[in-house]
Amino acid sequence: MTKILPEKIERVGIIGAGVIGGAWAAHFMRHGMRVKIYDPDPAAPAQFETRLQNTIMPTLEKLGMKTGASAANITFVSTLEQAVAAAQFVQENTPERLPIKIATLQAIDAAAPAETIIASSTSGYLMSEMAINLQHPERCVVAHPFNPVYLMPVVEVVAGPDTSDEAHQWAVDFYRYTGKQPLKLTKEVPGFVADRLMEAVLREALHMIDNDMATVEEIDMAVRYGPGLRWALMGPLTVLHLAGGEGGMAHCINQFGPSLAAPWTFLPAPELTDSLAQKVVDGCERLTENTPIAEMEAERDQLLIALLAMLEKSKLWHIGNRAEKATR
Amino acid sequence: MTKILPEKIERVGIIGAGVIGGAWAAHFMRHGMRVKIYDPDPAAPAQFETRLQNTIMPTLEKLGMKTGASAANITFVSTLEQAVAAAQFVQENTPERLPIKIATLQAIDAAAPAETIIASSTSGYLMSEMAINLQHPERCVVAHPFNPVYLMPVVEVVAGPDTSDEAHQWAVDFYRYTGKQPLKLTKEVPGFVADRLMEAVLREALHMIDNDMATVEEIDMAVRYGPGLRWALMGPLTVLHLAGGEGGMAHCINQFGPSLAAPWTFLPAPELTDSLAQKVVDGCERLTENTPIAEMEAERDQLLIALLAMLEKSKLWHIGNRAEKATR
Repeated sequence: MTKILPEKIERVGIIGAGVIGGAWAAHFMRHGMRVKIYDPDPAAPAQFETRLQNTIMPTLEKLGMKTGASAANITFVSTLEQAVAAAQFVQENTPERLPIKIATLQAIDAAAPAETIIASSTSGYLMSEMAINLQHPERCVVAHPFNPVYLMPVVEVVAGPDTSDEAHQWAVDFYRYTGKQPLKLTKEVPGFVADRLMEAVLREALHMIDNDMATVEEIDMAVRYGPGLRWALMGPLTVLHLAGGEGGMAHCINQFGPSLAAPWTFLPAPELTDSLAQKVVDGCERLTENTPIAEMEAERDQLLIALLAMLEKSKLWHIGNRAEKATR
Repeated sequence: MTKILPEKIERVGIIGAGVIGGAWAAHFMRHGMRVKIYDPDPAAPAQFETRLQNTIMPTLEKLGMKTGASAANITFVSTLEQAVAAAQFVQENTPERLPIKIATLQAIDAAAPAETIIASSTSGYLMSEMAINLQHPERCVVAHPFNPVYLMPVVEVVAGPDTSDEAHQWAVDFYRYTGKQPLKLTKEVPGFVADRLMEAVLREALHMIDNDMATVEEIDMAVRYGPGLRWALMGPLTVLHLAGGEGGMAHCINQFGPSLAAPWTFLPAPELTDSLAQKVVDGCERLTENTPIAEMEAERDQLLIALLAMLEKSKLWHIGNRAEKATR
């Protein structure tokens, strides 16, 4: 197990230079590390360079680069071994196909120093499926980021059955050192947490499109002018906690309980037992630190005012909104 | 059918003074209208007054009040008839119980001028279920808002089978005049669009909590530090359109197609037929007006930088995040 402190990491190996791998390379470079990337596609270096200069660097410069950080510190190498042999941390970003993930982890495990933590960006596979015949499975974790990786705070850091507690915690500390909000998950759940919730939205949306219940435009506008605004400020359970007024989630569960049984969506609801209700209520109170609802409402409103003012001036937020344009 | 222009509306009737009805009253008052509210609960006026002064007015003043608008223009009356008899527009906000909705719509229909549009804030019932034995069902629409009503842009405006096209369009124009983003839905779908998507998230979250796959904290933090940030800027389908790189949604469907069949969530996925895939791809291209992906990515990044800077300074966004506090 690596004893090195996260802030001492100087050399990072990146396998796969696509949208996710390339963005990780830029993120670690911004934080002052030297990055070696390997990608078997001969076109990868030129594609990455275009993306780095046109899209990523303007953003990193706005965010602020660490002293000494420079795009020149990212180097493409011609073998996986060259990328990881001297790496103090490795992030794997190959295509989402299990045989590729298994073979790549084996190659990294064989070539990287035994104490180097290896993280996989997989959005769906579990470490128990990917870590096959490794010499040092204890240093392998899933670290699932979100696009764009250099801006989205969350990283789901998931241990496998053979991952050591030390390696898991070290990865969490390392990502936090680079400004991320790591979510340390101990349970191996397919899709982890965020992707399960995103996929629930996507599946419901696809069902509605498939049944001509709603169009792509209706679905996207309903989210971006509606619940999406609140989800940037607080999660879906805190939204309900506030919707319950001074009674919070406990009051809200009484209200939405009956409608949960109605066939509103294609997803059957779990039975709202007393024990499930209690878990949700307790969780909301813990999460919001028993802050008075009115205090959270007041801050929510101030944040929404600022968010709406910002979005109103943007082009993206209005795209495809013909009705909105028609009135301008 | 009312011939009055939305900007000429001076008198609004509100039935029900809870979180939603009270907020509608404040919203219409802010836009210069005189509002009469009826609520059968004798405690309602005092509760509304507290909420108005402590929570709502500071927000409305930041947003800007129309000349002549004043909290004094909201008056509580002691019967439903007094609230609607001279109203040029009525918004109904009674509890979500069908017999109450039916009886209230009948009372409003009998007491309001025949040409006055009547909108129901119901979050779940369809006008075909609520409009029973009305004299003028053609002027009744569902207009489902989001909390807080005076800030959240979207209103789902849904016609029933007897609603006239003119009334439906008039309601859309009226809400847009008051600064809302009305979503004109012609199909009566239980849960409309936004609530179906929100409930898909909620059901998946409840299943995960019930099965000890994730805690309330993990679910909420995964959303607010992850996909929630993007959903404020663009809907879930545009998110995937951008995740596909230059290939957009068409490329993305090839990638996520296989994982859709995997049992990632508790919601079974629809079969991804060629025709469904084509609908989604066409919809994304229409919605984004064929804007180059790189252009949307660049603006997304600028918006995320500003959004994150704003949220970083807030208390709400960090609430319950012990790890985050531990490092401060």
